Amino acid sequence: MNNENTHKLEVQLRYSDTDQMGVIYHANYFSYFEQARTKFLKDLGFDYYKVEEDGIIFPVRDVSCTYLKAIRFKEKIYITTKIHKLTKIKITYYHEIYNLEGELKATAYTTVISVDKATFNIIKMDERLKEIYQKYQTLLQKTQ
Amino acid sequence: MNNENTHKLEVQLRYSDTDQMGVIYHANYFSYFEQARTKFLKDLGFDYYKVEEDGIIFPVRDVSCTYLKAIRFKEKIYITTKIHKLTKIKITYYHEIYNLEGELKATAYTTVISVDKATFNIIKMDERLKEIYQKYQTLLQKTQ
Amino acid sequence: MNNENTHKLEVQLRYSDTDQMGVIYHANYFSYFEQARTKFLKDLGFDYYKVEEDGIIFPVRDVSCTYLKAIRFKEKIYITTKIHKLTKIKITYYHEIYNLEGELKATAYTTVISVDKATFNIIKMDERLKEIYQKYQTLLQKTQ
Amino acid sequence: MNNENTHKLEVQLRYSDTDQMGVIYHANYFSYFEQARTKFLKDLGFDYYKVEEDGIIFPVRDVSCTYLKAIRFKEKIYITTKIHKLTKIKITYYHEIYNLEGELKATAYTTVISVDKATFNIIKMDERLKEIYQKYQTLLQKTQ
Repeated sequence: MNNENTHKLEVQLRYSDTDQMGVIYHANYFSYFEQARTKFLKDLGFDYYKVEEDGIIFPVRDVSCTYLKAIRFKEKIYITTKIHKLTKIKITYYHEIYNLEGELKATAYTTVISVDKATFNIIKMDERLKEIYQKYQTLLQKTQ
Repeated sequence: MNNENTHKLEVQLRYSDTDQMGVIYHANYFSYFEQARTKFLKDLGFDYYKVEEDGIIFPVRDVSCTYLKAIRFKEKIYITTKIHKLTKIKITYYHEIYNLEGELKATAYTTVISVDKATFNIIKMDERLKEIYQKYQTLLQKTQ
Repeated sequence: MNNENTHKLEVQLRYSDTDQMGVIYHANYFSYFEQARTKFLKDLGFDYYKVEEDGIIFPVRDVSCTYLKAIRFKEKIYITTKIHKLTKIKITYYHEIYNLEGELKATAYTTVISVDKATFNIIKMDERLKEIYQKYQTLLQKTQ
Repeated sequence: MNNENTHKLEVQLRYSDTDQMGVIYHANYFSYFEQARTKFLKDLGFDYYKVEEDGIIFPVRDVSCTYLKAIRFKEKIYITTKIHKLTKIKITYYHEIYNLEGELKATAYTTVISVDKATFNIIKMDERLKEIYQKYQTLLQKTQ
């Protein structure tokens, strides 16, 4: 969390992320968003992958992304992450991608749901995640 | 084109497409959609990659996808492709993913724009593409 | 198996497989080799992924590849697969990549070992696989 | 360069790098090696991608890798890079992957050649790269 209370993650671009247009291939952005929200949760004290070991997983339910400017391999980029909406079974994140010069590259929403790892049936969000959300809300209120 | 005039492509799943949830990783779907629309255009007589050699490329501008059922590696899947909307600078495709048993896995929209390869400035759609669209519309009317 | 008793698989190239050099990114070849050996085994009656469900997996132990000619996205390529060596715990495959014009693109060896899915400890090859190998050897002798 | 004169790069693992065995998919290691050698060169003052803009590219000619221990997503890993051999047209790098506890995960060689971007014909290594190599050798001698 920075002073504007927006979580930022600098993503390591890989040469393999590029395509023959000479830019980062569009599908890879969703991998960056996932890296960003995992780090976001971890920084709030929630270890996504410990929860996965407990048998709860968070598959993606809905995504959308608007691509504003192509990303070149030589650029350095970071992803911002905010919780847009949280219900008992879903979290919707809002992400933006910027380069280090502050140019906005893309905006995106991704919604994950909580399901049982064995059955893929929807289950209520892990209690720990709700605590995280309250912590996050408290942080937000302090900075507004 | 099948008798319902919907284009279908069976996609080869790769083991590398899976993730540790044991299902196909969500970002890879966008790579399948691209395979599908490239084949769709090719089957209508439009070679996307010859146009690319002429200096016109079609980067993705907007995508959205709803993930209904996880895809397992052992499944066989196909992608359906329709043109949802076409303007002078944009094409929006509508895609669905099914397994061979007809189970609907995901629905998606992807919008591509036509840009100059060297400058990434928006340019009007290639004339050939408009002809393709008319051909496609004619086909649609015949089957409706 | 064709008449020279070499297994061939045509691989669907994806636009996402390219990089900004304008060719297929080198790491992706290993994903093609895996597709090829999975199909090779399946065509011999061995379902790799059913065995995986039984708790035996085949992680890669060693790979090597020589890249002779770049692969362009517009090319159609196929992978040939042969068993180079089989022991109680390892299989070494030999692969070649060709385009449809018969140009040799790459040669590679990949060695997989059989391990217990839960512990990742090495275990003896599944009995079914040995039967497959005998079948394969018989086929080879017939054609030589 | 650390005090043993071995270059180290910590690589950001991505959830998309995992496969349904629950470990990092083997082909992705080659993408990490490329990240590592690019950073290695950059830290020695050679900007690989500026050279690419000048029309010289470094496609991979040969790779080999031995996979010793599976990498789990939750691990933190780093790649070490050394120049194993340098000729007028080729560089062979030697890489190792470790987790933060110092467990050796994999060892690998990758050989790149210098080619003309437009023609893919082999050309002599960029002069700047030879200077880099001399600088690197000097560093090595100081620490031995």
